[in-house]
Amino acid sequence: MAAERPGEFELIARYLAPLATDPGSLALTDDAAVLPSWPGHDLVLTKDMLAADVHFFAEDPAAAIAAKALRVNLSDLAAKGATPKGYLLGLGLPADWTEGWMNEFALGLKADQETYACALYGGDTIRSPGKLLVSITAIGIVPEGRAVRRSGAMPGDQLFLTGTVGDASLGLKLRQNPAMAAELGLADADVSHLQNRYLLPRPRVKAAEAVRTYANAAIDLSDGLVADLSHLCEASGVDAMVNIETLPISKAVWNALVKDPSVLSGCITGGDDYEILAAVPAEQAPSYQAALKKAGVPVTRIGALAEGEGKARFLSKGEELDLSAAGGFAHF
Amino acid sequence: MAAERPGEFELIARYLAPLATDPGSLALTDDAAVLPSWPGHDLVLTKDMLAADVHFFAEDPAAAIAAKALRVNLSDLAAKGATPKGYLLGLGLPADWTEGWMNEFALGLKADQETYACALYGGDTIRSPGKLLVSITAIGIVPEGRAVRRSGAMPGDQLFLTGTVGDASLGLKLRQNPAMAAELGLADADVSHLQNRYLLPRPRVKAAEAVRTYANAAIDLSDGLVADLSHLCEASGVDAMVNIETLPISKAVWNALVKDPSVLSGCITGGDDYEILAAVPAEQAPSYQAALKKAGVPVTRIGALAEGEGKARFLSKGEELDLSAAGGFAHF
Repeated sequence: MAAERPGEFELIARYLAPLATDPGSLALTDDAAVLPSWPGHDLVLTKDMLAADVHFFAEDPAAAIAAKALRVNLSDLAAKGATPKGYLLGLGLPADWTEGWMNEFALGLKADQETYACALYGGDTIRSPGKLLVSITAIGIVPEGRAVRRSGAMPGDQLFLTGTVGDASLGLKLRQNPAMAAELGLADADVSHLQNRYLLPRPRVKAAEAVRTYANAAIDLSDGLVADLSHLCEASGVDAMVNIETLPISKAVWNALVKDPSVLSGCITGGDDYEILAAVPAEQAPSYQAALKKAGVPVTRIGALAEGEGKARFLSKGEELDLSAAGGFAHF
Repeated sequence: MAAERPGEFELIARYLAPLATDPGSLALTDDAAVLPSWPGHDLVLTKDMLAADVHFFAEDPAAAIAAKALRVNLSDLAAKGATPKGYLLGLGLPADWTEGWMNEFALGLKADQETYACALYGGDTIRSPGKLLVSITAIGIVPEGRAVRRSGAMPGDQLFLTGTVGDASLGLKLRQNPAMAAELGLADADVSHLQNRYLLPRPRVKAAEAVRTYANAAIDLSDGLVADLSHLCEASGVDAMVNIETLPISKAVWNALVKDPSVLSGCITGGDDYEILAAVPAEQAPSYQAALKKAGVPVTRIGALAEGEGKARFLSKGEELDLSAAGGFAHF
């Protein structure tokens, strides 16, 4: 380590303690955070670990890495209908970390704490034996008994998806293969939109209240629409029927599709959408749509559920697509 | 990856789901754990990240690595007076992981879940871009308002330490330099005792009730007695006076000290003791000692606190030791 860099305690005091705005974090000066309970609420806990060059590029802006690590957890909370409260941060720094990088990383967290109304509760900072690692445990709350599972979907429910599908996975491909932009005839603005969707998830925290109020089941799309809808169907023991033509697609993805229709399968099997897929009883559907509209979250009905053996089926022009060869995004 | 090894979901189902014995974990089939709140209690949250060849040796038995990762967190909870309830596991597996290793790792967690009455709530399994990484977030509870901080110590408090000090750090040295055993004239049984104390912390979970009932302040020894007592003194704004001669020392450490008195400074500055250092009001001291005796936890009075500027002082035969050159164990 360069001699001028701070040690662990100084690093925590300088960059992380300012993020510990909840009194329960004890300003990161103790062994643990101590939080009062939230009477009338259940706790929702989730943990995602991100590794450089597995889940993000090591050279990504530090603020974006920080934001992504926090946001993928907030997306899990939102899909359960939970409101975020705080998080613990495990940070494994590579040997060549710099103070400038650490400062940007902390600023990325600070901005997101304001956007998503949560605070740093505690954590641990270590030297990584390899590349950068970020492990976040996020804590949210939901009114007692109101957490939404994957397993509650019922035959007859309608399937709704927030936002658009496939942007992030196409953005990742464009980043891995820059020549693809020209092949697909994409304008710079499209490329930049798609790559940003990969770099920075936009967790649907504002959708949480509508999800817990109206949905029978929900899941956030991290492994891809095909894989995550399959998870929901398996857990609920219902079949899903999705019309490909009704899927919400961004203008950028649409421009790519026009040039190369095969892009579509990557969009529904690729990961990192971080949109919320929800099964909503038909009679609640208008209320769900209205609540999301009020929250400023775009939502599209993409299909429906029926009795079955837990399979997700995708139809295009009335024909069922064979996606048996397509897996989810392998985060592992 | 070898083709015959299971993917992420199969790995979770086979090795980790059996550990998820609390219904709130939803059998690890959902995005998050959902736990009922504990009325009348505060939540205590702690997170420690361990990396291969930083915090343990990559070739250590998998069950011991699992146990250590969990136990260092349970030690933090115990020092706050909290009772463990569950944990989230972040596991970054190296490219060459095997099913046999994973099975042993899970068995290590299972045994500790029984010993310490806690359960796996959730987590994340990823491919590490380097060596093995284990990041655990542990959750405990304490009766409302009763969590013990580092910062509550008062002048006049007596200082108590559970167990013995210095075993683990001497055990680590013996492992790094096997020739040292002969130099110190240590018998095999001593070497094995010391190395085991490094390999497997014994968190003082049974001391938690006495700590929260009687202590004004407490901290677990992870960075070493000198560093951690300094943390407590700084946080509380009191000075500590410790008589070196009263420190609880194991027979194995004593045997080494007789041969080489300089071993002592390593014992009080070395880390990984995972004993509880507590500041107890003088009038509560007999009750604290009696409660720990009843819980089967050995404890020794090692000094007292006085008004001061937050410094830890160590006396030997009436002379103050100069430990200014000695730091804590650098986990970072």
